[in-house]
Amino acid sequence: MARSRITIIGTGLIGASIGHNLMSRPNREFEVVGLDRDRFNAKEAKKLGAIDREVGSLEEGLENAGLVIIAVPVVSARHLLEEIGPYLKPGAVVTDTCSTKADIMRWAAEFLPETVHFVGGHPMAGLEASGPKAARKDLFQGATWAITPSPRANEDAVGVVLGMVESFGAYPLYIDAAEHDTYAAAVSHLPILLSVALFRMVRDSQGWEDAALLAGPAFRDLTRLASGDPTMSKDIMTTNRDAVLHWLGRFESELQTIRKALDEGGQVVQDMFTSTQVDRDTFIMNPPVRRRPEGAPAPSAQDAIGRLFAGALYDKLKDVQNRPPVQTSQRDQDELQRKLGVRDEDRDR
Amino acid sequence: MARSRITIIGTGLIGASIGHNLMSRPNREFEVVGLDRDRFNAKEAKKLGAIDREVGSLEEGLENAGLVIIAVPVVSARHLLEEIGPYLKPGAVVTDTCSTKADIMRWAAEFLPETVHFVGGHPMAGLEASGPKAARKDLFQGATWAITPSPRANEDAVGVVLGMVESFGAYPLYIDAAEHDTYAAAVSHLPILLSVALFRMVRDSQGWEDAALLAGPAFRDLTRLASGDPTMSKDIMTTNRDAVLHWLGRFESELQTIRKALDEGGQVVQDMFTSTQVDRDTFIMNPPVRRRPEGAPAPSAQDAIGRLFAGALYDKLKDVQNRPPVQTSQRDQDELQRKLGVRDEDRDR
Repeated sequence: MARSRITIIGTGLIGASIGHNLMSRPNREFEVVGLDRDRFNAKEAKKLGAIDREVGSLEEGLENAGLVIIAVPVVSARHLLEEIGPYLKPGAVVTDTCSTKADIMRWAAEFLPETVHFVGGHPMAGLEASGPKAARKDLFQGATWAITPSPRANEDAVGVVLGMVESFGAYPLYIDAAEHDTYAAAVSHLPILLSVALFRMVRDSQGWEDAALLAGPAFRDLTRLASGDPTMSKDIMTTNRDAVLHWLGRFESELQTIRKALDEGGQVVQDMFTSTQVDRDTFIMNPPVRRRPEGAPAPSAQDAIGRLFAGALYDKLKDVQNRPPVQTSQRDQDELQRKLGVRDEDRDR
Repeated sequence: MARSRITIIGTGLIGASIGHNLMSRPNREFEVVGLDRDRFNAKEAKKLGAIDREVGSLEEGLENAGLVIIAVPVVSARHLLEEIGPYLKPGAVVTDTCSTKADIMRWAAEFLPETVHFVGGHPMAGLEASGPKAARKDLFQGATWAITPSPRANEDAVGVVLGMVESFGAYPLYIDAAEHDTYAAAVSHLPILLSVALFRMVRDSQGWEDAALLAGPAFRDLTRLASGDPTMSKDIMTTNRDAVLHWLGRFESELQTIRKALDEGGQVVQDMFTSTQVDRDTFIMNPPVRRRPEGAPAPSAQDAIGRLFAGALYDKLKDVQNRPPVQTSQRDQDELQRKLGVRDEDRDR
């Protein structure tokens, strides 16, 4: 019998970091296969121990894969979703790590065979550097991992992705794809544009050489996202353009408000900085509670997908299932069901 | 004979981090005295080992101090410069760590007695947190430390500050005060406003709770400066208002440029992200070379100020002096002399 197989398509920072996590499961009984359009990347990931095996074709890579993880920029993910259908085995779970989710969910519904389970995903994690060399096992530790199941994914499939995400130390968050894109535009995509704008502003100024000498951690932190993968950034702006432009407008208004405060000066400026500091410190010290989502039980031992994770990851899933349920109100339950998107199909896009 | 004394006024993040560095000098023969308008801060700094002794008045704190370090927000520094004159002993070296330098240099010239040596300073270092508890010995490791000597400071005084800064692992950079403020507005002060604007934009939106759940390292990094000391930020905007508004306008134009690129889409957007990434990666991987400034020799063993640092710090100074000079062109030398501001007094403001 063929060994269980997990296939990672795209072995950059995110894909290879996922690989390191999967590879380090004790007593694992699955094989991790990686492929990348840039074979050098995949070979590098293999050398670094992020995957067991590097393959050169979708056909070879997807043969017998029980779980497929698509970790490429959004627009490339579209092409993959168009192409992988014929090679997927029935019952396979397919997930992704793309930065925008509405288009991905639409493409998955359009292109994937009905026999596979698609569960959208987006780890809110990143680094200044990209590529497999920058990958780290602890990249997802403590991170939120947005999960947008398709109506077609069964609960066991959702449970597999949920269990995987939790085994990486991340917090899964069920969210509607359109909502995800709206809020991600504010907290993640607009910040890319701000980083790029700040870096370009200073770089293109006459004083760049002197300014660069003075630049400290503030400039470095604020411009970090300008070092992100350009294709990923471009794809984000292409697939989430309206939401990004909306928040860009809101940001420009906010700058106008600040400009007015500076004109008034004195106490007005002090109050603005003080109230913002208090609220941000509260946000950092008491971040919103990320409840474990209800509604997606882990797979049973008899479940075919569960057998993928016959090693410690599967035990982790069982353990999660056996925990006493987190107390949530009916309203929370309804909200989560709605967000899960599998009960109220009208809301699905 | 009284023991040599270094006095730190303001025992917050920067003052206490300086204290930790001074206190940890092996075989030190100087005492570190701290005072703070908020005596709780100073007592905390004492408890944490950042200072030897906490005092409650300028008179007590400045008695016999050979080196005085002012580590408070800019506007408070003005009041201190007005008040400390009568308590300073002739020949004392006074330096500061304020975020803007032109006003500080003006006030020092106006208020300090001619018998003391003022050397402006600004470590380009910071953290999300403030206060003595957040202080760390390695805060300045690798940081640029801007130095703006006054025309009245003699070379030995400049050498004392230079030696201190280098002993903290920082890189001193001589720079004209007005130039400092112009460039710091771009790389350090405008970023505060961007952080504040981004945090306020999301906090004040209806989706704040959901957005907060999604917020990852990008949002955290980009809004870090919104957690800075509000008084420090207000003082920066007060004393460097014109430069900050100048760069704010430039930033808004840059956002317009980006908006246009997004309208065009495709290759234009890709090119924008790619060229910015290349330039930022180059800046991070090959930061501009911070040459050790020429022109300010370390004090000789006979020098009164040098004796302040009779411990290892003084040896460090001697060592620095005995290094073969860095090769610099005549143009570089002239430029440094000009920046040092002690030769070409016309340029001094």
